[in-house]
Amino acid sequence: MTDHAARPVRTVGMLGGGQLGRMMALAGARLGLRCVVLCPDPDSPAFEVAAGHIVAPYEDEAALADLADRVDVVTYEFENVPAATAAFLAARLPVRPGPRSLEVSQDRLAEKTFLAGLGIPTAPFRAVDTLADLQNGLAELGYPAVLKTRRFGYDGKGQAKIGTPGDVVAAFEAMKGAPAILEGWVPFSREISVLTARGLDGRLVTYDVPENEHRQHILKFSRVPSGLAPETEAQARRIGEAVATALEHVGVLAVELFLVETAEGERLVANEIAPRVHNSGHWTESACLVSQFEAHMRAVAGLPLAAPVRHSDVEMENLIGDDARDPERYLGEAGASLHLYGKTEIRPGRKMGHVNRIRPRPRPIG
Amino acid sequence: MTDHAARPVRTVGMLGGGQLGRMMALAGARLGLRCVVLCPDPDSPAFEVAAGHIVAPYEDEAALADLADRVDVVTYEFENVPAATAAFLAARLPVRPGPRSLEVSQDRLAEKTFLAGLGIPTAPFRAVDTLADLQNGLAELGYPAVLKTRRFGYDGKGQAKIGTPGDVVAAFEAMKGAPAILEGWVPFSREISVLTARGLDGRLVTYDVPENEHRQHILKFSRVPSGLAPETEAQARRIGEAVATALEHVGVLAVELFLVETAEGERLVANEIAPRVHNSGHWTESACLVSQFEAHMRAVAGLPLAAPVRHSDVEMENLIGDDARDPERYLGEAGASLHLYGKTEIRPGRKMGHVNRIRPRPRPIG
Repeated sequence: MTDHAARPVRTVGMLGGGQLGRMMALAGARLGLRCVVLCPDPDSPAFEVAAGHIVAPYEDEAALADLADRVDVVTYEFENVPAATAAFLAARLPVRPGPRSLEVSQDRLAEKTFLAGLGIPTAPFRAVDTLADLQNGLAELGYPAVLKTRRFGYDGKGQAKIGTPGDVVAAFEAMKGAPAILEGWVPFSREISVLTARGLDGRLVTYDVPENEHRQHILKFSRVPSGLAPETEAQARRIGEAVATALEHVGVLAVELFLVETAEGERLVANEIAPRVHNSGHWTESACLVSQFEAHMRAVAGLPLAAPVRHSDVEMENLIGDDARDPERYLGEAGASLHLYGKTEIRPGRKMGHVNRIRPRPRPIG
Repeated sequence: MTDHAARPVRTVGMLGGGQLGRMMALAGARLGLRCVVLCPDPDSPAFEVAAGHIVAPYEDEAALADLADRVDVVTYEFENVPAATAAFLAARLPVRPGPRSLEVSQDRLAEKTFLAGLGIPTAPFRAVDTLADLQNGLAELGYPAVLKTRRFGYDGKGQAKIGTPGDVVAAFEAMKGAPAILEGWVPFSREISVLTARGLDGRLVTYDVPENEHRQHILKFSRVPSGLAPETEAQARRIGEAVATALEHVGVLAVELFLVETAEGERLVANEIAPRVHNSGHWTESACLVSQFEAHMRAVAGLPLAAPVRHSDVEMENLIGDDARDPERYLGEAGASLHLYGKTEIRPGRKMGHVNRIRPRPRPIG
C-alpha cells in the first residue's frame, strides 16, 4: 500500500458500469464529482452519465494505468474486482473501499470465518474441496444444507440445495470442481439487510433496516420500516457497524441477514456481506435526503457523512425482465418514483429498474 | 412546422450546458433517457453527465444538424434560444417547448402583451424606443418606474430604476439603444412563483407555490409552503396553467409573480415567464417524488406526468459565489441536501449550487 497524500477529490474512477455504477455516478454528480467508468461492456449503462469511460477488461494494465491517470480515487460497484487489479491501482492512488473488504467478501469461507471471528452468528459451515469433505460436512451439519461455490456467486447462482443423501453427488458436481462451502440450513422467517456507510474518518452512519422479499432468488421488494422489534433492529445496526469497522471499510456496505424466530425470541444470522451499495438500499433514493449512493460517494471522496434521515415510509419494487416492458404505467402513479437504468434490451431476470413508493401516499397537490 | 410521427424518445438534445441543463440531464437519466448537450462553452457543467456533447455556437447549422441526427427531440435550458436556431431544428425534429413559448418569453413587451391578453394583471407598461417615448411613458405611469431592455435581461441585468426626473437620461442611455419597456412601479410585499408542467397530451400539473427571497436581484431562498392565503395560491396556480395552456407549452414553465397587499386584500401581478425549469423550483428535487427536472423531461419525451406530491416542507438556499467556498459545512447538516453544479471557478454572483433543507427536520436515525 502506498501512502497517498490527502487531496480534494474531483474525479472518481469507477470499476463496473452497471446500474450501481450508474447510480453512484448520478449521485456523485450532485456533489460536483466527475466519474470515469471502466467496464469491458461497450454498452455499459453508467457510460451515459459519466464524464469519461474506458472499455477494457479489468485485467488490462494499460487501461488501469490510464484510469489511474485520469482520476483521484477509485471505487467499484461489485465485489469481484480481481485482487491484482485492486493491487495495481492501490499502488497508484487510493482505492476505496480497501483490499480487506474485497478479500473477505470475495470468498464465502473467508467471509463466514471473518463474521464468526467478530462473534456474529452465521449458518454453521464447512469448507468443501472433495466429495469426502462434503459427506463429512453433511454428517456434522445434517440435512437440509446448501452447497455454494466459495467465489463468484450471486442471485442464487452457484448454489445447490441438498435435501437428502440422494442429492449429494449432483450438488458436488454442480460446483464443477470449484472450492465450495457447505452451509447448514437456517430456518429463517424473514430476510433483512443493514446498510452502513463508513467515512474516511471512521464515522459510521446506518440507514433504517429494510425487510427484503425475494422471488426466484432475486430481490423483488424492500420495505422500510421493517416492523422488526427495536432490539432486533438495533442488533442489525450493530452488526453492520462492527463489520464496517473491522474491515476498515470506506463507503457503503450491506450485510444480508436472516431473521430466525424461536421460542426464545428473534435472532439474526448473517448471510453475506456486499462491500458496496446494495439493491436493498435503492429506497434511500426517494425516502432519504442523502441516498446510499451519495453516502458512498461522499465516503470515497473523503467528504463528511450526514445522519441518514428518512422522511417517509417506503417500498422499493425491482423491475425485472418483463416488468419493465411498459414503464409508463409506473409514471402516472402519485407518490411513486420510477428509476430506469437505460438498458435497452429486456432479458429474463435482468434488473431493468425499480420503483419507490412512499407511504402513506401523500395528498395530491392542487 | 413539420409534422413529426410519434416515436419513443430515447435521446434528448439539450440546448445549453449550464446547471439547468445538467439537472435536466440527471433527471432524464433516471428515466433511462440519454442526453446530447450543445453549448458553446467547452467547460459546460452539463457535458459531464451527458451521453454526448457538441461544442458549438447556437447559430452553427452544421452543429445543429449533427445534434438533430443524434437525438429524438430537442429542449433547452434558457429562453434566449435564437429564433432561427429553433426554426432550423423544428424543421427536422420536435422542439419542446415550441416556438410560441420562446417568442413570448424572449421579449418583455410581447410577454406583457400576452399576459394582458389572458386577463392576467401585470405592471402597467409602455414600449420605449426613444427618449420621447420614455418621457411620455413616465408622464402616464408616474414615478418610480423601471426601464428594462425588451430582450436578454436576467437577474436584474438590463434594468434601470427611475426614481425621479433626474434619472431619466441615464436610464435611457443604460439601454444602449436597445428597444426597451417602461414598467410602472409595483408596490409588492412578497415574491412568489408558480411552476407548471404541461404534458404533450395537454395535461397540467402545478407544484406548490414557493415564496422567493432575492438578494442583489439574484434568488437566494425559496420556501414551501409559502403561507399564502389559499385563494391567492389557487389564483397563482390558475395563472401558471392559463399561461402554459395558451402557449401550448410542453415542459415546465415558471411565472414569477408579485404579491401586492392592499386594503381590499392580496392581489397577484405577473412579472415574467420563464419557459423552462426555474431556480425557484430546485426544492422539488428534495421535497417531491418527481422533481421539476423530471417533470420537464417526461413532458419533452412524451411520457405521462404525475401529480407532483410533496412529502416535506422545504427551504432552498442558493449558493452564490463565495457561499460555495466551503461546501463541506452543508454536508454534515442532517435534513439537508447539497447540490453542487461541478463548476470549478467561483465568481461573484455565479450560481455554484444549492442546499435544500426539509422542515421539520426529521429525527436522526439510529
